[in-house]
Amino acid sequence: MAIAPTVEAVMQAGGAHIPPLLAAAEERLAALAAGHGHVLARHAGDTIAAGGKRLRPLLVLVVAGQSARAVEAVRAAVAVELIHSATLVHDDVLDAAALRRGRPTVVATAGRAIATATGDLLFSRAFAELAANGRPEEVRVLSDASSALAEGELLQRADAFDPRVALERYLRRCELKTASLFEAACRLGALEAPGGAGDSEALGAFGRRVGLAFQLLDDVLDVSGPASRTGKTRGADLLDGTVTLPLILARERDPELAGVDLRGVVTPERAAEVCDRIEATGVLAEARRRALEVVADAKAALPELDERRRAALELVADSVVERYA
Amino acid sequence: MAIAPTVEAVMQAGGAHIPPLLAAAEERLAALAAGHGHVLARHAGDTIAAGGKRLRPLLVLVVAGQSARAVEAVRAAVAVELIHSATLVHDDVLDAAALRRGRPTVVATAGRAIATATGDLLFSRAFAELAANGRPEEVRVLSDASSALAEGELLQRADAFDPRVALERYLRRCELKTASLFEAACRLGALEAPGGAGDSEALGAFGRRVGLAFQLLDDVLDVSGPASRTGKTRGADLLDGTVTLPLILARERDPELAGVDLRGVVTPERAAEVCDRIEATGVLAEARRRALEVVADAKAALPELDERRRAALELVADSVVERYA
Repeated sequence: MAIAPTVEAVMQAGGAHIPPLLAAAEERLAALAAGHGHVLARHAGDTIAAGGKRLRPLLVLVVAGQSARAVEAVRAAVAVELIHSATLVHDDVLDAAALRRGRPTVVATAGRAIATATGDLLFSRAFAELAANGRPEEVRVLSDASSALAEGELLQRADAFDPRVALERYLRRCELKTASLFEAACRLGALEAPGGAGDSEALGAFGRRVGLAFQLLDDVLDVSGPASRTGKTRGADLLDGTVTLPLILARERDPELAGVDLRGVVTPERAAEVCDRIEATGVLAEARRRALEVVADAKAALPELDERRRAALELVADSVVERYA
Repeated sequence: MAIAPTVEAVMQAGGAHIPPLLAAAEERLAALAAGHGHVLARHAGDTIAAGGKRLRPLLVLVVAGQSARAVEAVRAAVAVELIHSATLVHDDVLDAAALRRGRPTVVATAGRAIATATGDLLFSRAFAELAANGRPEEVRVLSDASSALAEGELLQRADAFDPRVALERYLRRCELKTASLFEAACRLGALEAPGGAGDSEALGAFGRRVGLAFQLLDDVLDVSGPASRTGKTRGADLLDGTVTLPLILARERDPELAGVDLRGVVTPERAAEVCDRIEATGVLAEARRRALEVVADAKAALPELDERRRAALELVADSVVERYA
């Protein structure tokens, strides 16, 4: 896989130990995809081996630092990415999504049944991977995060198609659905850092904020597109009935949006129309501004750290809001 | 919940320590259903709290024995049942099943999205529960089993609608999809037994065979029905394209069954016709006989044990083939 610019910059800032560890994590992910029979290789190989931005493993490795036990840190990085991949595969089932990262989804090529089981297998392998580290505390961190992801998904479905969903409820959903795994990545890194879990709380809080900012920007990109850059249909959230920050802000400025019938948004054309209307209110700049504020909060929450780790973590934080800006 | 006759007999044989431990497991399952917000309570409460036969938790507790650490043994029992419940919820999504244990399924009442997320949450809580025991070896046993369950599901889907699937392949699927969790239950019990994991291998082998026999009989009941006793549509496997032992045996005796178009089996009426035809070949007795043989193998595989544990485990083994006999 080509290394994303962010990853390269973070690796340069974070130290020479990071590239080989990230490469080891990639190798392990590829081996897991290949090692569970052709079934997993065929259906999940694309998702887990073709790779996304690898932000979560990167957070684990940067936080763990250069004196961490390498094998254990890599396992934690792999476990976090497997959980992430599992939720992507399941999310695509729920959304009946055709594309992910510009490639056909598991559900599109193999159907719902195989995609659901593939996600379950990825979940299971994540816990097996982390258990090999021999630290129950790590398993607790990961299982709490994966519970939160599922609770976030449940909240999202409960609120689906309600254009009046409260801002607080939306933010809570982001915390559960996205921020929790970023937090877990940082906590796991802290547990792998030599000297133990001293900074675990503060680093977890940093990760949570980075994850929240990531989701806020993701929700902006869903409205702004273009699909050619985001790799998914513009307005995919609307098609799914999911109300996010742009619509929540825009409905205050455009009464027609407050009463929009989301169940009537069933074609990409109609979704694009609603996106245009949201964009016309000027709220996307406001939503981006909020994401930047959360990133600033994240950086402010960083505990005392050596210069290398701090610089690398600040780069990760900045990167989540610098996508297609 | 009313205690099933098997459970009662096993509890009497296994010793006075078992009823309070099983009650504690029930309480914990109910608390977990209630404790993750009304979302989980609403959607998974029925599945996890209303209870099935609780065979897997029972195996954990019987194997662990009366000198096991009670809190830890109960956690292991709860974790195994949560994984089981998670797979039931996901299986029902895949099969679009309307009923489970005679009640409406999560997918039937809340839709695919919520059912998928509910299953994910149950998976996650299982690992969180077990991690609290502080023993990575236990997490490994559970994650290996849950991986096997998912692989079995993948195998089942890969072979769907193929009436010529090989017997060996069917047996492998049963090992993965069912036997692996029975094995894990026994292994976890062994890990909780005082003196540690000495019998873990042999007890795991016992559990695996009990699980296989359970599945063989389940597949007989799917053909024989009646729905009023099994709680599900007769021929549900056929409607799902799943080829099991009765059809595998029957196709040798009735050439028309060898060439049956399973994609044409789309109504309960047609499924019942194929079931009748399978039954007419007389293979159900043969399939039951094979299940009984596996139970005999299971008992023979039991390692040296005190009389109480042996008697209780033999009762569990017998019970899986004595359903609606």
